[in-house]
Amino acid sequence: MTKKYVYLFKEADGKNKALFGGKGANLAEMTKLGMPVPEGFTITTEACTKYYEDGKKISQEIIDQIFDALAKVEKQAGKKFGDPDNPFLVSVRSGARASMPGMMDTILNLGLTDISVQGLAKLTDNPRFAYDCYRRFIQMYSDVVTGLGKSYFEEIIDEMKEERGVKLDTELTAEDLKELIAKFKALYLEKTGVEFPQDPKQQLIGAVEAVFKSWENPRAIVYRRMNDIPSSWGTAVNVQSMVFGNMGETSGTGVAFTRDPATGERRLYGEYLMNAQGEDVVAGIRTPQSIDHLKEINPEVYRQFVEISTRLEKYFKDMQDMEFTIERGKLYMLQTRNGKRTAHAAIRIACELVEEGLITEEEALLKVDPKQLDELLHPQFDAKELKKAKPIAQGLAASPGAACGKIAFTADEAVQRSERGEAVVLVRLETSPEDIEGMAVAKGILTARGGRTSHAAVVARGMGRCCVAGCSDLIINEKEKTVIIKGVKYTSDDYLSLDGSTGYIYAGEIPTVAAEISGYFEKIMEWANKYRRLKVRTNADTPQDAKQARDYGAEGIGLCRTEHMFFAEDRIAAVREMIVARTLEQREKALAKLLPMQRDDFIAIYEAMGDYPVTIRFLDPPLHEFVPHKKEEIDALAKEMGMASEELENIIEGLKEFNPMLGHRGCRLSITYPEIAAMQTKAVIEAAIIRNQRGANVKPEIMIPLVGDVKELKYVKDVVVETAEQVMELHGTKVDYTVGTMIEIPRAALTADEIAKEADFFSFGTNDLTQMTYGFSRDDAGKFLNDYYDKKIFEFDPFQKVDQEGVGKLMKIGVQLGRQTKKELKCGICGEHGGDPSTVEFCHEIGLDYVSCSPFRVPIAILAAAQAAIQQK
Amino acid sequence: MTKKYVYLFKEADGKNKALFGGKGANLAEMTKLGMPVPEGFTITTEACTKYYEDGKKISQEIIDQIFDALAKVEKQAGKKFGDPDNPFLVSVRSGARASMPGMMDTILNLGLTDISVQGLAKLTDNPRFAYDCYRRFIQMYSDVVTGLGKSYFEEIIDEMKEERGVKLDTELTAEDLKELIAKFKALYLEKTGVEFPQDPKQQLIGAVEAVFKSWENPRAIVYRRMNDIPSSWGTAVNVQSMVFGNMGETSGTGVAFTRDPATGERRLYGEYLMNAQGEDVVAGIRTPQSIDHLKEINPEVYRQFVEISTRLEKYFKDMQDMEFTIERGKLYMLQTRNGKRTAHAAIRIACELVEEGLITEEEALLKVDPKQLDELLHPQFDAKELKKAKPIAQGLAASPGAACGKIAFTADEAVQRSERGEAVVLVRLETSPEDIEGMAVAKGILTARGGRTSHAAVVARGMGRCCVAGCSDLIINEKEKTVIIKGVKYTSDDYLSLDGSTGYIYAGEIPTVAAEISGYFEKIMEWANKYRRLKVRTNADTPQDAKQARDYGAEGIGLCRTEHMFFAEDRIAAVREMIVARTLEQREKALAKLLPMQRDDFIAIYEAMGDYPVTIRFLDPPLHEFVPHKKEEIDALAKEMGMASEELENIIEGLKEFNPMLGHRGCRLSITYPEIAAMQTKAVIEAAIIRNQRGANVKPEIMIPLVGDVKELKYVKDVVVETAEQVMELHGTKVDYTVGTMIEIPRAALTADEIAKEADFFSFGTNDLTQMTYGFSRDDAGKFLNDYYDKKIFEFDPFQKVDQEGVGKLMKIGVQLGRQTKKELKCGICGEHGGDPSTVEFCHEIGLDYVSCSPFRVPIAILAAAQAAIQQK
Repeated sequence: MTKKYVYLFKEADGKNKALFGGKGANLAEMTKLGMPVPEGFTITTEACTKYYEDGKKISQEIIDQIFDALAKVEKQAGKKFGDPDNPFLVSVRSGARASMPGMMDTILNLGLTDISVQGLAKLTDNPRFAYDCYRRFIQMYSDVVTGLGKSYFEEIIDEMKEERGVKLDTELTAEDLKELIAKFKALYLEKTGVEFPQDPKQQLIGAVEAVFKSWENPRAIVYRRMNDIPSSWGTAVNVQSMVFGNMGETSGTGVAFTRDPATGERRLYGEYLMNAQGEDVVAGIRTPQSIDHLKEINPEVYRQFVEISTRLEKYFKDMQDMEFTIERGKLYMLQTRNGKRTAHAAIRIACELVEEGLITEEEALLKVDPKQLDELLHPQFDAKELKKAKPIAQGLAASPGAACGKIAFTADEAVQRSERGEAVVLVRLETSPEDIEGMAVAKGILTARGGRTSHAAVVARGMGRCCVAGCSDLIINEKEKTVIIKGVKYTSDDYLSLDGSTGYIYAGEIPTVAAEISGYFEKIMEWANKYRRLKVRTNADTPQDAKQARDYGAEGIGLCRTEHMFFAEDRIAAVREMIVARTLEQREKALAKLLPMQRDDFIAIYEAMGDYPVTIRFLDPPLHEFVPHKKEEIDALAKEMGMASEELENIIEGLKEFNPMLGHRGCRLSITYPEIAAMQTKAVIEAAIIRNQRGANVKPEIMIPLVGDVKELKYVKDVVVETAEQVMELHGTKVDYTVGTMIEIPRAALTADEIAKEADFFSFGTNDLTQMTYGFSRDDAGKFLNDYYDKKIFEFDPFQKVDQEGVGKLMKIGVQLGRQTKKELKCGICGEHGGDPSTVEFCHEIGLDYVSCSPFRVPIAILAAAQAAIQQK
Repeated sequence: MTKKYVYLFKEADGKNKALFGGKGANLAEMTKLGMPVPEGFTITTEACTKYYEDGKKISQEIIDQIFDALAKVEKQAGKKFGDPDNPFLVSVRSGARASMPGMMDTILNLGLTDISVQGLAKLTDNPRFAYDCYRRFIQMYSDVVTGLGKSYFEEIIDEMKEERGVKLDTELTAEDLKELIAKFKALYLEKTGVEFPQDPKQQLIGAVEAVFKSWENPRAIVYRRMNDIPSSWGTAVNVQSMVFGNMGETSGTGVAFTRDPATGERRLYGEYLMNAQGEDVVAGIRTPQSIDHLKEINPEVYRQFVEISTRLEKYFKDMQDMEFTIERGKLYMLQTRNGKRTAHAAIRIACELVEEGLITEEEALLKVDPKQLDELLHPQFDAKELKKAKPIAQGLAASPGAACGKIAFTADEAVQRSERGEAVVLVRLETSPEDIEGMAVAKGILTARGGRTSHAAVVARGMGRCCVAGCSDLIINEKEKTVIIKGVKYTSDDYLSLDGSTGYIYAGEIPTVAAEISGYFEKIMEWANKYRRLKVRTNADTPQDAKQARDYGAEGIGLCRTEHMFFAEDRIAAVREMIVARTLEQREKALAKLLPMQRDDFIAIYEAMGDYPVTIRFLDPPLHEFVPHKKEEIDALAKEMGMASEELENIIEGLKEFNPMLGHRGCRLSITYPEIAAMQTKAVIEAAIIRNQRGANVKPEIMIPLVGDVKELKYVKDVVVETAEQVMELHGTKVDYTVGTMIEIPRAALTADEIAKEADFFSFGTNDLTQMTYGFSRDDAGKFLNDYYDKKIFEFDPFQKVDQEGVGKLMKIGVQLGRQTKKELKCGICGEHGGDPSTVEFCHEIGLDYVSCSPFRVPIAILAAAQAAIQQK
């Protein structure tokens, strides 16, 4: 028995979107609900997959099934494809499982030929209408099936309108259109070398293949990558009897939502155009009218539409986005789907559907896309002002939000000018750890180099600061303090406006509006907290970040990077002294300077976090990142250290590494210089003692980075414990601290049973774990990953979403082996991935205790954690 | 019941070396065989482990057991510790499971005090002897128990000899010695603050603790690391009744081997000294006599000793190394063990023991240490000449063998001068791929920087070229062509001699002797081939290496690195053109130049390998390694390419990477530039066609490097297959080729089931796999790994021996998942580890099909493979 690839709408299973696509499934549902849906059939997604498996060929089997289904629909309609008297016409539409912009959308009026167009003219007694349909069909078909650009045809139309001295298409007569058709066909022949197909069946198969092909066009691939849609899904094709909205003034076509997609307000919202086909509504040549207006034009159709839309919303339990056509006063439903909406609308609709008793809280939570919440958490451009602006360039949308300020070319400049109350955006070739302070005070950050995981992007996201990265159109002259963008020079006096959500850069000032958290948002968070099992912590290095995250619902700090504290102007000198010290004595002297600073940092962070747990990671980056590289800075440091500049230069040179990512960093530093770990332990414990004396109950979690072997952990832990005991004895008090480790090296995951013997907790550092498991550095991968996406080797960015097959397998092994040794071992994640919804779901599945992410992603993680818990039930 | 930590020799289990150490076990065996062994007892290795567990404290429990055993031995001897009339004296010796230089060896005469020394004098009627024993004991005890250096005591002796006007110690009288003892004791008090212990029991516990402590002294740690001995083993301590070889002219002491340890010849071999204690034999002040001479002195003792040594060899089935003492004409056996021997002796003895019917072939194979074979495969210094030479500096023993030649400071110079027939050693700060040709013609390589896995070391080992690396005493001035070593300047006219097995550097010419493969060696290899299951291939990039490896028994090439072929002077230009090409056209033009060269390379390599399989790895290193960095070279290339120098500089700059190890290399290159893979495929297949037309039957194996995801492999494989099919069709013939992959990225091992779907074979690239699994680069790890060894975090170098817990676990996962998909999937290893015996054993255990290693390690791998198979039975 052969497989069934083609189903009539009434045969299809409306619940099976995987097979019939969203559009096909919903057409089947509407058909079953007895709604006025033009007859038709769906070619399944499996046919699409087979098309690619067969080397981009539609098999005879599928063609036969298409023509079988066609025959049945013809019979029902009492018309025939290509019939000179009563021609059967169809629309052909793509329909993937998820709505996918970028793919071929629609071909209307398919079935028209030189002969059948006459039948249509006769039948409708409207030759102008018939020829208009035909010329539209030729245009659309040429465009999507043969790739013959629309502009060729537009030119011909424009020429004719000029000849005739008319302005609108509608002013052309039937005879004009006939002439136009002849010219179109001639163009088609000239450009493609063959006649425009006069066999409707050939047209149909051509259109079906065009839909299949559009699944793999570049825009569709990019969209899938951005939205985690696997290419294996394929698209379905829907073939449907044509109904005509352009049969005169009693006909029309339109789109409508059951609720306002911008605000979520519960009211029918949409627009329509009489005497028009779908494309006219979108084209914007004629201004469509509000759906409310239909009530006056045709109250019966309006009543019927309201009834249908109400039924559909109740049936699908969600806001619907519907397409309809009125043919000579009769309403037809062409499509319905859950409507896209803004984040604001999404949370309002979800909450109100619960209030209306239509859905449960759990269902409401599943209706909100966690990623969308991002919109609610950053300042945005004033929408009206934005409409007037035109971007001057585009970079990578590296950290969301909008920013506007005058250009600062160095971090120092940014600090000074913002201290004077100026709003600045920091524009750099690329940023480095030394720029941290400048980044913190800037409204936004713009870089010429680096990807979404560059230093600028990662730090900006952590800070919730808007960032556009890797804009190659920038030519920056730091010395002269100018940046040239596409030939135009901008200076420190010029404003730039950045949109970190789109990557657009605008010249001049666009006002921004602050993020606003409405009551619905709170309610959604409240529900999410009720249903989730995973705890959500934050990655925060400053009291400001910690406070922000708590406001957003974080239940502790999962990653406090101590090194970020080292770059502050008042500390870097001592840090450098420590690094270039030649003797233990020199190093301890420098560390003694750092101790009170670190202690104060921790006091402030503990305070911001209340009694929530704080995980403090010990010094991690290669020391080379801290040392000066400019001659004058080196000279100054050498003087301070009492050594010759040449000697210091040698020391700095000696710190250079071939592969710093794989170099002397993490716990390796503490093994070489245990005194660093000792100083940090002192700061952690003393700060806790001070807070606890003030009535707090701080339980610090000390986290040792980059452990690959249990003996590394043991060695550093011994230093920590010994120091902590000394400090506690000295102060005659106890602090309830724990010592755990990052699991960020493959070997740590593979030997987690051993490592768990020495670790009180595990925290998966998925940034480094991803780098090492894949064997590429994120600083360098940008150079070749685009080829990987283009060639469909990667379908998503493994630095944004955890690769579950590889990296995730190591995580699973790590959790399993770790808990084999310690049944209740606390496990979390603190990589950038911790705020990615699909990763949060994965973390839930493998049994982690918490995820930790940047403050601005906390609400996203909370919602994703709730969704994971609900879905797992 | 408490644990037994102390056993009399007659109680101990002579088979249990783990518990009693080698020395203790063999004393037990000899005691049971009824041989004349002085009574005593062994403190087990578990007591040593417990000592460390208890925080370096000997528990009361163990002390009690020691004194219990002591009492029994005293009783048997009829003497008492510290007895003023008949004092009991003992020796205390360490004895680990494996013989371990670097640990405390022996304390003799323990039990002597100011009082008991008088008893000994009376009893032996020989005061001079008694006081001599006592002063020796004070010296030894002070040295090993309190760390008071021997030189202090030597000074006092020298002073006294001067005062007395005598030359030899033996010329000092009993009274002199008494005075000496008083001075020694005064010194002891002065330096340690306490009196020399007068309680023999306190002496004994002090000595036992000194043995335990010596287990962790630096020399012992280094030795263990070099020999893969875990620190958890611990050492045993043997306490034995003293017998005296210094009781006059009928007493003596000596050591002997049952066969000649240098040549393996079957004859009693050894030396002895009358009227002496053990240390005198070693000290070299008096010249010992050959063991044969004993026959004349005391025929009965000689006969008895020959009988015992024959019995011992038959009993232990191996050449014995024995210590004995004659006390007033009576023979005592103090120790026996399997003797250390040269590689030459090892293979001769193993073969002859089989001929003598004492052992089987399998047992013979287990008696040869595979690592030792290395000695047989490289030129060595003439031993007589070497004795006269004194090293001027020492570097790392990076690649074994000896070399002698005049200094060449650049690769070019080395090539030119060696073409003129000069023998040169290449002296460089460090080597880079551009130095390959120079390294190939040099007799040896000496570098100032880099470790055992630096470029120089890895390449030199691959070539079987002697290399001393990382000698920090070198101050090289390449421009002036001088090198200063510890203040002495050497020029191009000076000879240096290098010993790659010890790391020693000698000034001047030391003649070398070529490697000689004797008949025994062939026989051992023949037996090894008979018993092993693992195939052994070689890593070879040139026909010379391939031929060398075949001579040594290799059964194919497991890794042919194509990039090494790219550095030759006549090719690098075309390679660079390919790299900096801006268009596909330019790149293909450059590739077309390379094609015939690569094809010729492969033809020659196939020819050298006969019909054995050849695995060719496609281009792997980051492209940056190939491009010029000097201004004039850049200008020349720019001219050739028809571009501005600035543009070329930009391209070169753009190739730089933060972490090249994790950058754009391996299959990632072929994904960006599929035309490179296509060119290499053409060369591989065309070469095979040409060889096959000449009657060969070449089956090339194409290996894709650095695969982390099956889709990467699939993409490159598709290019390979398509190209291969085209080439074969063009020539109207077929080549039986396969396409496999390196498993060198953790993710590849973790997803091996998927990767196996596209791979005909797996080859574990354990160099990169180790780097990524541990998360450190071998170029940088040198900086901190010494701290790791010092702090006992690592006990071996994971780049020399596969880390079985982490990297090995990934290998196991890889093999298991791969064979889950393809039951018969061929799996091998081609990292540097492939020639390491413990790794070979591991590869056997996890079911690999072959190991591949550098040509000079092929015999080692063959023997190790046989041992693994025999041991697994």
